[in-house]
Amino acid sequence: MGHQGDENLETKEMGERSLSISRGQVPYVHKVGVPPRQNLFKEFQATVKETFFSDDPLRSFKDQTKSRKFILGIEAIFPILSWGRNYTFKNFRGDLIAGLTIASLCIPQDIGYAKLANLAPQYGLYSSFVPPLIYAVMGSSRDIAIGPVAVVSLLLGTLLQNEIDPIANPTDYRRLAFTATFFAGITQATLGAFRLGFLVDFLSHAAIVGFMGGAAITIALQQLKGFLGIVKFTKKTDIISVMKSVFSSAHHGWNWQTIVIGASFLTFLLLAKHIGKNKKLFWVPAIAPLISVILSTFLVYITRADNKGVAIVKHIDKGINPSSVKEIYWSGDYLAKGFRIGIVAGMIALTEAIAIGRTFASKKDYQIDGNKEMVALGAMNVVGSMTSCYVATGSFSRSAVNFMAGCETAVSNIVMSIVVFLTLQFITPLFKYTPHAILSAIIISAVINLVDYQAAILIWKIDKFDFIACMGAFLGVVFASVEIGLLIAVSISFAKILLQVTRPRTAILGKIPRTTVYRNIQQYPEATKVPGVLIVRVDSAIYFSNSNYAKERILRWLMDEEEQIKGDYQTRIQFLIVEMSPVTDIDTSGIHALEELYKSLQKRDIQLVLANPGSVVMDKLQTSNFANLLGEDNIFLTVAEAVAYCSPKLAEDP
Amino acid sequence: MGHQGDENLETKEMGERSLSISRGQVPYVHKVGVPPRQNLFKEFQATVKETFFSDDPLRSFKDQTKSRKFILGIEAIFPILSWGRNYTFKNFRGDLIAGLTIASLCIPQDIGYAKLANLAPQYGLYSSFVPPLIYAVMGSSRDIAIGPVAVVSLLLGTLLQNEIDPIANPTDYRRLAFTATFFAGITQATLGAFRLGFLVDFLSHAAIVGFMGGAAITIALQQLKGFLGIVKFTKKTDIISVMKSVFSSAHHGWNWQTIVIGASFLTFLLLAKHIGKNKKLFWVPAIAPLISVILSTFLVYITRADNKGVAIVKHIDKGINPSSVKEIYWSGDYLAKGFRIGIVAGMIALTEAIAIGRTFASKKDYQIDGNKEMVALGAMNVVGSMTSCYVATGSFSRSAVNFMAGCETAVSNIVMSIVVFLTLQFITPLFKYTPHAILSAIIISAVINLVDYQAAILIWKIDKFDFIACMGAFLGVVFASVEIGLLIAVSISFAKILLQVTRPRTAILGKIPRTTVYRNIQQYPEATKVPGVLIVRVDSAIYFSNSNYAKERILRWLMDEEEQIKGDYQTRIQFLIVEMSPVTDIDTSGIHALEELYKSLQKRDIQLVLANPGSVVMDKLQTSNFANLLGEDNIFLTVAEAVAYCSPKLAEDP
Repeated sequence: MGHQGDENLETKEMGERSLSISRGQVPYVHKVGVPPRQNLFKEFQATVKETFFSDDPLRSFKDQTKSRKFILGIEAIFPILSWGRNYTFKNFRGDLIAGLTIASLCIPQDIGYAKLANLAPQYGLYSSFVPPLIYAVMGSSRDIAIGPVAVVSLLLGTLLQNEIDPIANPTDYRRLAFTATFFAGITQATLGAFRLGFLVDFLSHAAIVGFMGGAAITIALQQLKGFLGIVKFTKKTDIISVMKSVFSSAHHGWNWQTIVIGASFLTFLLLAKHIGKNKKLFWVPAIAPLISVILSTFLVYITRADNKGVAIVKHIDKGINPSSVKEIYWSGDYLAKGFRIGIVAGMIALTEAIAIGRTFASKKDYQIDGNKEMVALGAMNVVGSMTSCYVATGSFSRSAVNFMAGCETAVSNIVMSIVVFLTLQFITPLFKYTPHAILSAIIISAVINLVDYQAAILIWKIDKFDFIACMGAFLGVVFASVEIGLLIAVSISFAKILLQVTRPRTAILGKIPRTTVYRNIQQYPEATKVPGVLIVRVDSAIYFSNSNYAKERILRWLMDEEEQIKGDYQTRIQFLIVEMSPVTDIDTSGIHALEELYKSLQKRDIQLVLANPGSVVMDKLQTSNFANLLGEDNIFLTVAEAVAYCSPKLAEDP
Repeated sequence: MGHQGDENLETKEMGERSLSISRGQVPYVHKVGVPPRQNLFKEFQATVKETFFSDDPLRSFKDQTKSRKFILGIEAIFPILSWGRNYTFKNFRGDLIAGLTIASLCIPQDIGYAKLANLAPQYGLYSSFVPPLIYAVMGSSRDIAIGPVAVVSLLLGTLLQNEIDPIANPTDYRRLAFTATFFAGITQATLGAFRLGFLVDFLSHAAIVGFMGGAAITIALQQLKGFLGIVKFTKKTDIISVMKSVFSSAHHGWNWQTIVIGASFLTFLLLAKHIGKNKKLFWVPAIAPLISVILSTFLVYITRADNKGVAIVKHIDKGINPSSVKEIYWSGDYLAKGFRIGIVAGMIALTEAIAIGRTFASKKDYQIDGNKEMVALGAMNVVGSMTSCYVATGSFSRSAVNFMAGCETAVSNIVMSIVVFLTLQFITPLFKYTPHAILSAIIISAVINLVDYQAAILIWKIDKFDFIACMGAFLGVVFASVEIGLLIAVSISFAKILLQVTRPRTAILGKIPRTTVYRNIQQYPEATKVPGVLIVRVDSAIYFSNSNYAKERILRWLMDEEEQIKGDYQTRIQFLIVEMSPVTDIDTSGIHALEELYKSLQKRDIQLVLANPGSVVMDKLQTSNFANLLGEDNIFLTVAEAVAYCSPKLAEDP
């Protein structure tokens, strides 16, 4: 390593190496460091901290007085107290414009999404009134737009409908919806409070892309009912059932007036979306839905198209959210069902909100505390469940509009909430003549962006296994149901993790010419093997799940190598160097595997040599006494030093 | 890296580096290798091969004629055809002695274990007759001793008893036992045939130690019934219920004659065990149980102690295994229950057998094909279930005796099987007066070795998390039930895997004095940081489960570092080098995280630099276009080269 002239330095460290030096003529060998042993409690504390408090949330509490700590604590729960003090008029201008824009987008969407959840239209609006207010005082994202979203509405609708028929039993259905919302909130808050936020990371990006795409297709297909004016429609969501429904009603079930209205406004919406690609005109697609609603409502009103079979909203309750505390099932069979549905819906809502929060936080370069965010979302849904709201979360499309409209803080959510409040108080009756076809068109144009085919292509290019997860989730949602798709997504994600920990990669290393660097010979074809020495790298922590595989794989590399040089006694393998740099940890099974490897090699008269074990591994090698068994002087700082030690010894052999 | 004089070499590779060289005065930089792209099918093939055929089982089939391949195939299924041809008389001498020894050990154990499974004593003997024969022709371990074992008997007994009361409904109970055995065999064979053998690795060594220890304690506690001569005994297996049973019957339920017999023979057995620690006298504990049975049976017979309340075997069927094909439930409710129980019992039996097979194979240095072994064990249990046997597997204690007695091949199992056959045919009636207390004493002395407290101490020393898994399984079995213990063991094992993939370690690297080696500064306190450059190593593949954590952790390292050098403009961090050596793979989420990291750093005017990405990672960095975004000349072969590139640039700054 370029230090051949340094023999006279650090001599005191060399004592125990002297034997090997005289044998092997290695001029200078560094010792592999063993960190000072930590006491057990500290070690445990460090692990817990890294697992649950990896973001060091108490950083700002350090070295503060008690009263200051209290204030900081209150501010941590209600971030509005901290950013609110510096809130300026300039901030408000941005928030006002953004808030008005997302309000105009959310009102028609809310009415449509409530239908996806099989609820009356006002429940969508309710869910855009209370939850954003709660979020604004507790949440830490500045860009997220809170309210009902398409995928969660669909998921909730599907899950609830499996339990109660929403048409036969609307009251029980609604009560179960509130119960599920309550438990969705509890789930979210609990995960956050116990700092288990990392659990949402177990749904891989690829699986989410597939799931979202599938859900978007499913939602769009569901809209064919409103879009084509079909009266009898399947309750299933898979593409085959829906297509059967659509075509079996083709003769008499389609309503041409509805189709004309729907198609023309969908064209308008998609055109607006296209115009919106110019970032300065982002507001065009943002207000297009509201304009469509106003125009089409007016159109239906003056033509009385509802008498010609165009389905309209008909009735929508006026006034703000009534209390629903008494509607939640606090006992009985539906409590358990609501609990189960709430967990699933809550997790999905969480995944979406966290993904949005992170995306925009990284765009504006501020930090989001995922766990605190979960507590905020959870609190918001718990309060929501008691004020006639169903599960609300961050919406991809509205958050993007919020961001582009120049929102500065969560005040934009408050503005939106106020607009929704005014709508509920004064103008809901005006929605009476709004045709369903428009809502369908709005939903279709909203969810179409969730089909992120470019991301799918990129996933295909980067990682084939990820692509399988993506397509599995997608096809599962489209051809079976949202639950099946979700199950597939989670299963494939887990399978990937298991594969990763069961079958770590291994590589044969060679020396890169004119360096002392040893690298994978498949990656660097110019790297050359050292005769008589086999250098293997294990690319993973050695745990019970892979220890046996790792051992057998190393032995197989050895067999392959021996087969290649068969008969050539000169270069008989005499040393097997295991490069341990990527082996970040080892457990008891791993130590056993190393022991077995050592014994197997001994029987073949091959010396096992380790290069660069990390601190944790070195510590465990010593406590388990394997370091002694192997001989401390068979453990080196670098592969180069290990080779330097082995090669001269090779020369001594006959 | 000791090649400062090599600038004039390999100049053709240097073209695209020239810009950075003129800027940074780096004399010589190696390119990071990108392996040639494989075609998709080959890549897929390689993954499948490594996952399912990692042991290259078809190696010997290569370059053979068709008829030879056929013969090799037959030999692969029935290894006896291959080793049988070289079988010598010398081999047979070893096998004969070993076979007789394990037979003398297994006969009393079998009768006792059958009781653990709530079956009549002859079923234990049946299970030591047919399964060893099947295994001998199909199995590849030379040392394993096949038959019923304590833990599986207890597990099966507990699971079956939850479904059917063995005393009220002995016939149904027995039928369900055969059904479960059938499916245990099917499970084992299926796992082997589909090469899913690696699934048994998911039960960690630590969890097995705890589970086995707990099961041993539970089994020993169960023996108090026979040992103390208690008539009314709890059906539960947890220590609290058992102790209540024992003490509540203390007044009138204990039988002193039974205790005297039990205690004296247990002393004898433990003494024999102690003598057996001298390896030359291994046969003493091996034949002690049979001697105990003979002596105690004779004693009871002449004293007619059974009239004084000493419980005896009373009846044991004569003759070999009857067919039980018709007893298996091929339909109905019990089919599903048998299936479920069979899977659990089959997996545990498999885990035990594979562990034994591997242990002894590594002692004698031969290879065992885990998957082939599973097929053999599965076939043996399927045949067993049709010939009145319950789940058989490899026994730890008998295999050790087999090994020490000098067995050479599976012929020792055949010898044992023949002895059991003769016993069944001719001498079972003699067991009529065998006292239960003796069987209890034999079981206690057999399972006591499963409490491997030394292993537990070692686990404590090496890995605290493993110790939690170990104790969790142990306490679960002892205080709740075998199923709960098993569930805890599996859960903790999985939790460990999840923790591993969620919270990878990261480290700050420093330069080891007088080298160009960069290592963890916590492991090597002498290592020094490079001013203005932060070098972070991520110790894991970057996958969806940890990509976000990894990104945030790196940023936190940066914040910590910036806090330390606050105000010191001279050493403001300008470069962040991520050492990628341990990053063995990256997926789409990982690429996203890198992109976000890159953008965050850009906002702080810090340049991201990568060192030594592996071939897979390099490939993905390029396909995802991140390599372009970052700039190919910010990717280096080693940390040293990256630092050499950054440091001169630092000097240029004001």
